Amino acid sequence: MPRPVLLFSGQWTDLPLEDLTQKASEWGYQGLELCCGGDHLEVQRAVSEPDYCQQKLDLLTRYDLTAPVVSSHRVSQAVGDVIDRRHRAILPDYVWGDGNPDEVPQRAAEEMMATARTAQKLGASILGGFTGSPLWSYVNGYPAPAPATVAAGFAEAARRWHPILDVCRECGLKFACEVHPGQLAFDLYSAEMLLDALDGREELGFLLDPSHLHWQGIDPAEFVRRFPDRIVHVHIKDTVLQLNGRNGLLGSYLPYGDPRRGWDFRAPGHGGIDWESFIRALNAAGYDGALAVEWKDSGMDRLYGAEEACKFVKRLDFEPAPPRDDQAFRNS
Amino acid sequence: MPRPVLLFSGQWTDLPLEDLTQKASEWGYQGLELCCGGDHLEVQRAVSEPDYCQQKLDLLTRYDLTAPVVSSHRVSQAVGDVIDRRHRAILPDYVWGDGNPDEVPQRAAEEMMATARTAQKLGASILGGFTGSPLWSYVNGYPAPAPATVAAGFAEAARRWHPILDVCRECGLKFACEVHPGQLAFDLYSAEMLLDALDGREELGFLLDPSHLHWQGIDPAEFVRRFPDRIVHVHIKDTVLQLNGRNGLLGSYLPYGDPRRGWDFRAPGHGGIDWESFIRALNAAGYDGALAVEWKDSGMDRLYGAEEACKFVKRLDFEPAPPRDDQAFRNS
Amino acid sequence: MPRPVLLFSGQWTDLPLEDLTQKASEWGYQGLELCCGGDHLEVQRAVSEPDYCQQKLDLLTRYDLTAPVVSSHRVSQAVGDVIDRRHRAILPDYVWGDGNPDEVPQRAAEEMMATARTAQKLGASILGGFTGSPLWSYVNGYPAPAPATVAAGFAEAARRWHPILDVCRECGLKFACEVHPGQLAFDLYSAEMLLDALDGREELGFLLDPSHLHWQGIDPAEFVRRFPDRIVHVHIKDTVLQLNGRNGLLGSYLPYGDPRRGWDFRAPGHGGIDWESFIRALNAAGYDGALAVEWKDSGMDRLYGAEEACKFVKRLDFEPAPPRDDQAFRNS
Amino acid sequence: MPRPVLLFSGQWTDLPLEDLTQKASEWGYQGLELCCGGDHLEVQRAVSEPDYCQQKLDLLTRYDLTAPVVSSHRVSQAVGDVIDRRHRAILPDYVWGDGNPDEVPQRAAEEMMATARTAQKLGASILGGFTGSPLWSYVNGYPAPAPATVAAGFAEAARRWHPILDVCRECGLKFACEVHPGQLAFDLYSAEMLLDALDGREELGFLLDPSHLHWQGIDPAEFVRRFPDRIVHVHIKDTVLQLNGRNGLLGSYLPYGDPRRGWDFRAPGHGGIDWESFIRALNAAGYDGALAVEWKDSGMDRLYGAEEACKFVKRLDFEPAPPRDDQAFRNS
Amino acid sequence: MPRPVLLFSGQWTDLPLEDLTQKASEWGYQGLELCCGGDHLEVQRAVSEPDYCQQKLDLLTRYDLTAPVVSSHRVSQAVGDVIDRRHRAILPDYVWGDGNPDEVPQRAAEEMMATARTAQKLGASILGGFTGSPLWSYVNGYPAPAPATVAAGFAEAARRWHPILDVCRECGLKFACEVHPGQLAFDLYSAEMLLDALDGREELGFLLDPSHLHWQGIDPAEFVRRFPDRIVHVHIKDTVLQLNGRNGLLGSYLPYGDPRRGWDFRAPGHGGIDWESFIRALNAAGYDGALAVEWKDSGMDRLYGAEEACKFVKRLDFEPAPPRDDQAFRNS
Amino acid sequence: MPRPVLLFSGQWTDLPLEDLTQKASEWGYQGLELCCGGDHLEVQRAVSEPDYCQQKLDLLTRYDLTAPVVSSHRVSQAVGDVIDRRHRAILPDYVWGDGNPDEVPQRAAEEMMATARTAQKLGASILGGFTGSPLWSYVNGYPAPAPATVAAGFAEAARRWHPILDVCRECGLKFACEVHPGQLAFDLYSAEMLLDALDGREELGFLLDPSHLHWQGIDPAEFVRRFPDRIVHVHIKDTVLQLNGRNGLLGSYLPYGDPRRGWDFRAPGHGGIDWESFIRALNAAGYDGALAVEWKDSGMDRLYGAEEACKFVKRLDFEPAPPRDDQAFRNS
Repeated sequence: MPRPVLLFSGQWTDLPLEDLTQKASEWGYQGLELCCGGDHLEVQRAVSEPDYCQQKLDLLTRYDLTAPVVSSHRVSQAVGDVIDRRHRAILPDYVWGDGNPDEVPQRAAEEMMATARTAQKLGASILGGFTGSPLWSYVNGYPAPAPATVAAGFAEAARRWHPILDVCRECGLKFACEVHPGQLAFDLYSAEMLLDALDGREELGFLLDPSHLHWQGIDPAEFVRRFPDRIVHVHIKDTVLQLNGRNGLLGSYLPYGDPRRGWDFRAPGHGGIDWESFIRALNAAGYDGALAVEWKDSGMDRLYGAEEACKFVKRLDFEPAPPRDDQAFRNS
Repeated sequence: MPRPVLLFSGQWTDLPLEDLTQKASEWGYQGLELCCGGDHLEVQRAVSEPDYCQQKLDLLTRYDLTAPVVSSHRVSQAVGDVIDRRHRAILPDYVWGDGNPDEVPQRAAEEMMATARTAQKLGASILGGFTGSPLWSYVNGYPAPAPATVAAGFAEAARRWHPILDVCRECGLKFACEVHPGQLAFDLYSAEMLLDALDGREELGFLLDPSHLHWQGIDPAEFVRRFPDRIVHVHIKDTVLQLNGRNGLLGSYLPYGDPRRGWDFRAPGHGGIDWESFIRALNAAGYDGALAVEWKDSGMDRLYGAEEACKFVKRLDFEPAPPRDDQAFRNS
Repeated sequence: MPRPVLLFSGQWTDLPLEDLTQKASEWGYQGLELCCGGDHLEVQRAVSEPDYCQQKLDLLTRYDLTAPVVSSHRVSQAVGDVIDRRHRAILPDYVWGDGNPDEVPQRAAEEMMATARTAQKLGASILGGFTGSPLWSYVNGYPAPAPATVAAGFAEAARRWHPILDVCRECGLKFACEVHPGQLAFDLYSAEMLLDALDGREELGFLLDPSHLHWQGIDPAEFVRRFPDRIVHVHIKDTVLQLNGRNGLLGSYLPYGDPRRGWDFRAPGHGGIDWESFIRALNAAGYDGALAVEWKDSGMDRLYGAEEACKFVKRLDFEPAPPRDDQAFRNS
Repeated sequence: MPRPVLLFSGQWTDLPLEDLTQKASEWGYQGLELCCGGDHLEVQRAVSEPDYCQQKLDLLTRYDLTAPVVSSHRVSQAVGDVIDRRHRAILPDYVWGDGNPDEVPQRAAEEMMATARTAQKLGASILGGFTGSPLWSYVNGYPAPAPATVAAGFAEAARRWHPILDVCRECGLKFACEVHPGQLAFDLYSAEMLLDALDGREELGFLLDPSHLHWQGIDPAEFVRRFPDRIVHVHIKDTVLQLNGRNGLLGSYLPYGDPRRGWDFRAPGHGGIDWESFIRALNAAGYDGALAVEWKDSGMDRLYGAEEACKFVKRLDFEPAPPRDDQAFRNS
Repeated sequence: MPRPVLLFSGQWTDLPLEDLTQKASEWGYQGLELCCGGDHLEVQRAVSEPDYCQQKLDLLTRYDLTAPVVSSHRVSQAVGDVIDRRHRAILPDYVWGDGNPDEVPQRAAEEMMATARTAQKLGASILGGFTGSPLWSYVNGYPAPAPATVAAGFAEAARRWHPILDVCRECGLKFACEVHPGQLAFDLYSAEMLLDALDGREELGFLLDPSHLHWQGIDPAEFVRRFPDRIVHVHIKDTVLQLNGRNGLLGSYLPYGDPRRGWDFRAPGHGGIDWESFIRALNAAGYDGALAVEWKDSGMDRLYGAEEACKFVKRLDFEPAPPRDDQAFRNS
Repeated sequence: MPRPVLLFSGQWTDLPLEDLTQKASEWGYQGLELCCGGDHLEVQRAVSEPDYCQQKLDLLTRYDLTAPVVSSHRVSQAVGDVIDRRHRAILPDYVWGDGNPDEVPQRAAEEMMATARTAQKLGASILGGFTGSPLWSYVNGYPAPAPATVAAGFAEAARRWHPILDVCRECGLKFACEVHPGQLAFDLYSAEMLLDALDGREELGFLLDPSHLHWQGIDPAEFVRRFPDRIVHVHIKDTVLQLNGRNGLLGSYLPYGDPRRGWDFRAPGHGGIDWESFIRALNAAGYDGALAVEWKDSGMDRLYGAEEACKFVKRLDFEPAPPRDDQAFRNS
């Protein structure tokens, strides 16, 4: 049984959900990863309007789609971050409020709990998002943080996230924390630290998007092999390295799509990720969750690309071997 | 005339300057890059005690050393940074004061001006340091900053640095701003932005240390070719890439020397930098400043290494060709 | 709107045009790049017979093909070359005449003007070809030419080509000069020199065939980025490097297909060219001309291969992104 | 007994021979490869003045140098070339004469015979030089030459060179023909063709300079293994590849030292040649001739570099193993 | 006419032949390589039951399959090996007998002769298998064997194989000896030695499976070019290198599929083999035999994979160029 | 305190020990690894003649050399091997005896115990050697051994080696078992298996020679990091990979020095081993044993090479950093 191929709705919140649903269905997707944004998922309405979730489900069902994953990357970012003016643009007004940096994280945490309850109503088993990070400015910065400073940052983040994870447990959800620059966990060893900081509690898993590891020099398949039981959601997005001696991996403040960047996102199969070894690592780890296309490519039409990507993922996701038995003729 | 080979004193402030001077001379160095720290250079004493600078110069002269470059990386960092608790450990008490983040940068700026005046007294022509950066937490972070946010960060930094550069001009100094993660300029394009933000004023130059560019994927020789007239100081330090699929270039909060890191500093010649192409680029640019060994290698004894490094640099710094004339027999 | 996929007719002049037209149509091509050779395009008949061009167009129309590009590589070569016996085999008798090296180039120039007028009658907007070169024997040869000798060669070529470009202007054509060994422009810097020599006049553009750049070590995408407004026609042909220590890039006088060669031409997708980055560079440059398959592969059946190549190009030529607008969810 | 390390005098003809001799001796060279140029070797004087050769030998002896190899690259080039205005600058007036392209080659051939007789008088056993080539303009050019055209070029060259090789035989000399772009033999397979064209006669050997093979992608050690008995002289010169996507291997008419070139010459050990495998191949072939430094590096001072190069070659030229005998303890 | 695509039946002997035949036909195969094992091919029954072979052929014909190749890898291994307990598991009881190492090889040889006669009855032209090797334990072992010891091993093997090859000749068969670790011929030079040891007799050819050469560092296309007339059968199987510094190419006794191995088998197209150059080498050699998928991939479902592999091979096996004729327009 | 640099005497047993001692001392070595062979170390005499060992020690002392390591590779090989005719050439007559394969291993074991007692008398702390292997013929062979077969081989070897290790314990020796093809432990995972089979007993350590790992694709530094406490002796020998598509890593039965081999041994620094990372790994592991040059290079004179190698090792063995303390200025 191949894994369901989803479309991450975050890049499409400019379209009404019904439009996106129709397109995704035509393109061959089996479901959506519903993101908070536009009319795709409005948490406060979902909480307060009795039929809200059912209507969303009905809509998806009409197009034969499922929604096993719900995501809220923007609000979750504010839970653990040092808040600054950038956050205003990504938060609902009622979370931002007066923008007091000491209070925004708490409001963001409450919104995440409400999102978890909404995800449960939608029948999802995974809640995706970020953690934010009080430590990001120290990564490769100067002065290097003392170990105690790093530890304190993780402890503070744990304090903020435990209550949300408690709600996830109640709701039967895993929180899929994306391994991503700007977050506490952005590579293999920082992911270990995050698990430790949260006592390895069961509700915590990782959302793995190979595109964020590739340009750092990390092999996504090694990440899977290190945490075979913690991968609870997967994004499919590609990255291209275009180093030429003049540009670099830190990106020079240049936006995606600027040809001077040292790396950029690409439609799956159009970059440098070794998808073969990645899917085999997922197979070996027994991962049976969804594969969600997060479509982002500054050089390709998104309508054209989203359809192509769906086909790409289905081709990629070959049938793994059944549990090993002795083979009759092993060595010729 | 080969370039003077200096030893950057910053890693040696646990030694009295006289001890370091003696060693450096024995190892073959021709001078020191004097750093603020220990008794190497105490700015407030230099400003207030009439003989302070002359005594330092006398000491150096006794060992046949010069001090053409003066550096203050720690204090300069605080000029442009968002101040947090990490800065307390790197600042003199009178600069840190009560640690009010709105006031520390101003006190740091005043200290830098005093440092410039001290450098002039010492006969130096280069003042080295950092800029700090209000933008560092946005690099590769989330949410990406709007272009206006980046521009505002550079503008604010320019506002803080212009007065210091004014003093440099008065003192006949270039400010050698190190291209370095954690600073405004950390790669080629961000260096362009910094120059633009400061109107390309003449007192601003770059301190180029190839070790900070190499792991980003940038060719230090390309940086030289892009800014041939702005390289005013050079650090010699090496970097090794030790990627193995599991670690990454962002370093996982791990300290230098931790074998799990994706890259680390190395004694010159023990890492992956292409020194041949770097020195040729400096030659082609007509760079005639110093080559300062910043010795940092977690796997080698520093006394052994500092001597080896001096020999390495002298061997590296071959005599460049004189200005081009026609060659008699060009093509056989 | 994807670009028209053409078949370059030059390798098929042994077939009557009608046969080729029928095949090309069946294979999926949308048009032909009509070459002078066989009965594909006979310039003197086109000039003298009133219906000649219309009959060709009628033939193409019957098979739903267009002919937006007309090429004359052989005759154009003789315009700028030092004439020797090799040229006899590639020129019509009336251009070769008595083969006087001082007169052949003038007759070739006149033929090119007639070809331009023919192209106009055929409704083409691009005239493709070579320039020939009086400098080719100096490339990598001995003795190296003095700069003045190089300049004189370009000046002479400019003198010969200006009148032809004048006719192109009258006819509303761009002359697509192929960047190719044996020509004045064979790489990025020599292309700059050619543009300069011809005062950057508007009728002059480049026919870019990545296969001629790849084995020289040049990235075709960089060429596009250097001359975004000058690429007026594109050939799709691949190249394989098969260096093994014993052979070399200069080819040892060995014909294509000889397994000892250091490189060879290949059907598109069967060699080493990075087509993904090439098509993205064309997209970024806003190139909206044709993509013409020049099919040449000594190891594959040409009937099989021409069909496969058409499919390859259509798959390659994905829909580029629309002009950039802000994206809602850029960084997750 | 290690091989003698010579300095090729061609790049130093602006210095009087006595000056060069003194320097070469101080730098550690054991001899010179005497080139026709300046006062280093004037063939017509050597032929007509009875003491000329002896005086040269006396001079060398005073500085403990030998001269086992005599070279005349410039004049030899004109023997096989299509003559044009470039040749005027490299030929003595009496060889150029009126520059009639049909007659210059014959005068050049006569001068080469005189050079051979001079070499004999000087006690040399090797005469080095070029062949020139009537085929160079066809290499990678258009139209490709028919096989018969290539064969005719070799035949013509053979006709011109046989008489010179006859004189070499009389004088007990090998003619060391440099494998070099611009010559008939520029790679492994063209060297085979040249040997065939000259019936494999014994007086013909190759002068191998790895720098001319490296940028073509050819492994100089493979060349040695192909012609173990035909390597009669060796030049030591290095080459660096500096491809960056924008430049190419054909060099864009740019002079050596231009940073835009795709490759350039370098002092030995400062480029990309695998000297270890090259010297082992020479050892395995039993080559016992000289190693002559041809010093050419646009980025290094030649006085500094020539001394460094001599040391480099001596270090490189380790003692080879004696003819193989059974080893007692082969496999632990 | 493309080559027939077969399925090697050896990995499927747990399925009755009829089941496999049906599946193979549905998957698109054109035939089977029938292996001794299960009910696929029972040699003693084939010899003793008059209708046995015809019934097999009828079965295949019902599903439109052919059987041009018959294989017996297991029994053939015992002909040349030093017999130990491992062989019991792979031999029929009547060949193993009492397991006396001096007698098993003779019984294996007789079984191979019977297999050859069976192959003839089945209309096959190729008999595939191994040779076994008395020398395998010496490869890379200690102490290294003396040359005489190697020679003696080949001589002994030749003595054992000549009678079998005699029967092949009578039956009109080539014996396709697989180039494979554990055999006398496992790489290019050992294949030369085997041919020599068997006097280059015509019945001896090679079964080439690129997967066994790739991890040894050998290019399968070079093997084809070395023995163009001796390749009589081809297996299509892929290999992946997964070296990470800790594992190695000798495999540490680890079974296939263990993720710690330095290399492993893969479904075709899922590993590192350069199939493009391999198929072109077969084309150039004029190979017109079958391409047999030997399907082995520990990470993929075999039913899914066998169908995919058939499609892969058909796509790979493009139409080669007809024998070379002059091309009209070779160089544009 | 740098590590002692020894010369492994095994390749020099054709020289009387006194000759070798004198040479080694002149070349700069600090000691010998004494091997059984020639007059270097004759175990039966050492056991029976009271002064034998003292005379050897006196000889070494005269030349200022030590002998901290004693080796017996040849005899130790026979302890665990399947005995065949190759062993006769490497064993003393009294160990070979009648060559009965069932008895030779026992006699070899007794000789190893005597060697251990001799090593003790010589004051050595390390006994070096092989294990032999009953499993070598199964490595990469066919049929693959069942896991039980592998386990049985290790168990048998353990049975044979325990008594020898008992004697080592009595004598205060570590047995340094060389990780080497042909032995039970030839890579990282097989070394784990050997340790397990021998219950991880303390007397068992590894002799690590990077040259045997490099061509297998294993990083010697990773091996050190895996077994930091088990490396008890180190050989310094280099390996070159010379793959060219035609040759392979299994070596085709070709002897060392044959240019067709895919890899070969080289004098240290003349091959492809990354000595920098190897020595750093040894430093990090706290290895304080000897570095013994095992000099083997078929292309270099051994007298020349042994001296060069000693210098190479001394240069390589730089002073490691003292145990980590906080560094004052970590991040500039």
